[in-house]
Amino acid sequence: MSLVVVGTMAFDAIETPFGKTDKIIGGSATYVAYTASNFVKPVQQVSIIGYDFPQGELEELQSRGVELDGVVVVPDKKSFFWSGRYHLDMNTRDTLITDLNVLADFDPVLPESYKESEFVMLGNLMPRIQIKVIEQMKKRPRLIVMDTMNFWMETTLDDLKKVLQMIDVLLVNDSEARQLTGEFSLVKAARKILKMGPSYLIIKKGEHGALLFYSNQVFFAPALPLEDVFDPTGAGDTFAGGFIGHIAKTKDISFENMKTAIIVGSAMASFCVEKFGAERLKEITKEDIDTRLEEFVQLVNFDIALV
Amino acid sequence: MSLVVVGTMAFDAIETPFGKTDKIIGGSATYVAYTASNFVKPVQQVSIIGYDFPQGELEELQSRGVELDGVVVVPDKKSFFWSGRYHLDMNTRDTLITDLNVLADFDPVLPESYKESEFVMLGNLMPRIQIKVIEQMKKRPRLIVMDTMNFWMETTLDDLKKVLQMIDVLLVNDSEARQLTGEFSLVKAARKILKMGPSYLIIKKGEHGALLFYSNQVFFAPALPLEDVFDPTGAGDTFAGGFIGHIAKTKDISFENMKTAIIVGSAMASFCVEKFGAERLKEITKEDIDTRLEEFVQLVNFDIALV
Repeated sequence: MSLVVVGTMAFDAIETPFGKTDKIIGGSATYVAYTASNFVKPVQQVSIIGYDFPQGELEELQSRGVELDGVVVVPDKKSFFWSGRYHLDMNTRDTLITDLNVLADFDPVLPESYKESEFVMLGNLMPRIQIKVIEQMKKRPRLIVMDTMNFWMETTLDDLKKVLQMIDVLLVNDSEARQLTGEFSLVKAARKILKMGPSYLIIKKGEHGALLFYSNQVFFAPALPLEDVFDPTGAGDTFAGGFIGHIAKTKDISFENMKTAIIVGSAMASFCVEKFGAERLKEITKEDIDTRLEEFVQLVNFDIALV
Repeated sequence: MSLVVVGTMAFDAIETPFGKTDKIIGGSATYVAYTASNFVKPVQQVSIIGYDFPQGELEELQSRGVELDGVVVVPDKKSFFWSGRYHLDMNTRDTLITDLNVLADFDPVLPESYKESEFVMLGNLMPRIQIKVIEQMKKRPRLIVMDTMNFWMETTLDDLKKVLQMIDVLLVNDSEARQLTGEFSLVKAARKILKMGPSYLIIKKGEHGALLFYSNQVFFAPALPLEDVFDPTGAGDTFAGGFIGHIAKTKDISFENMKTAIIVGSAMASFCVEKFGAERLKEITKEDIDTRLEEFVQLVNFDIALV
């Protein structure tokens, strides 16, 4: 009935051309949960945190319908910490610090209540952990969506390839699609990736939108042209949260509905980048979301009958 | 009743990662004419060529409804020649040779039959020439569209700014929009450019599509994801030709129709890049164009009622 989300819950410290933060709340599963909970409840969270993760943040998530039974709290270690600096174009960044802390020991045990979930979102995390979550499900979920990143391609490619054979939808960005396949053309890269396991592939292109590939079909969702991209951290996770949130809400895993889900993901990501961290995601209402979705309709809708 | 097109008719020599050409036919007005003539006849061409421009090419254009009364042939000089080499990403290129030849003396005189045209396409060319064409029109055309490039921003910005105040639609690429305004955000750049004269601004982003700005509204047209971009030369001119061709055919200058025109431009540009030079544009049929337009509908069409 519900959605299982696995990923990091962490601290980030971010520098952008617009400013810098001290440690703020981050992590792939955090962004996914804040986003998906707009569409489906409960969100059954799987993660690991240290003693330093704020109680207030956990309560905030719970108030939005995020179940934390699958979140392990390690009393004598710190939460995962990442620090990075974005370049002027906001599409590239340098990692300054990666402190694994609790993440080094993460061995997820799914609560019984999670094990029959229809939908699973594997947020960006070690592929080995993603596999462990899938293996604990009592029956094959209707849809398993996986996010990943170049780091896992470089350090643990064999595990990554194993997960690819267990999932339905893969999310990567354009440079990761190229890295995974050795193809510069995204169309060629997509064809190769679809042979590695997933039936659906979403290639995220940041400010240039996202492509959904399925069989020989392709769909494109633009990013909303924004005055300023304030902080792109978490935009990909937010996109994933909007995508899986919409799918889990509608329980429709057709290609047609995935198109709409990608628009929802793009709309949610467009909020995320407006402020540092997950700040903006905590503010928005259903009305804000509906208004923004209508902006996407206006952005791409044209009358081909005029041709 | 018709469409006036001004621009270069020239030779190009092109190197891409896929191969290189000897001198082949190029020039902004050549691409616009080959493209727009699919939608509207006559296309009233304004350009200048040397003794070396092939008679067969002129006949080919005429057979497609392109009038050449406004094309000056200089018997003792060579046609404009440009040579360039594309980088692997196909979005950036180095100019190797620019031989102005006949272009240095170009002082267009519009034939009487051109002077009441409703639609004018100012292809990429010295702004001074673009102004001269506008000034010779007997009455204000219903729509004047202008293409330009960074070179004119660097060498003759005052003239460029003058043309901007005389036109309706400006076409530039993303880096040119940034250069013209000093704004990195394309939304901010667009706002500044719309204050410089044109009511409509199209920002071309190559493989990342194109944005149409009008007042506070924005429309986005994707580029078709292609297996290979073989040669991007002329893609921008072809886009312009499809845009103005659709407008001139439908005689509808509303924002709604411009959205469709941008899709038509994107579809035509997607053909252009499939082969070297204008080769592919000479092959395609109405059926090819209709099929590709339908691909664009499939590419962006989604059902927001599902949300």
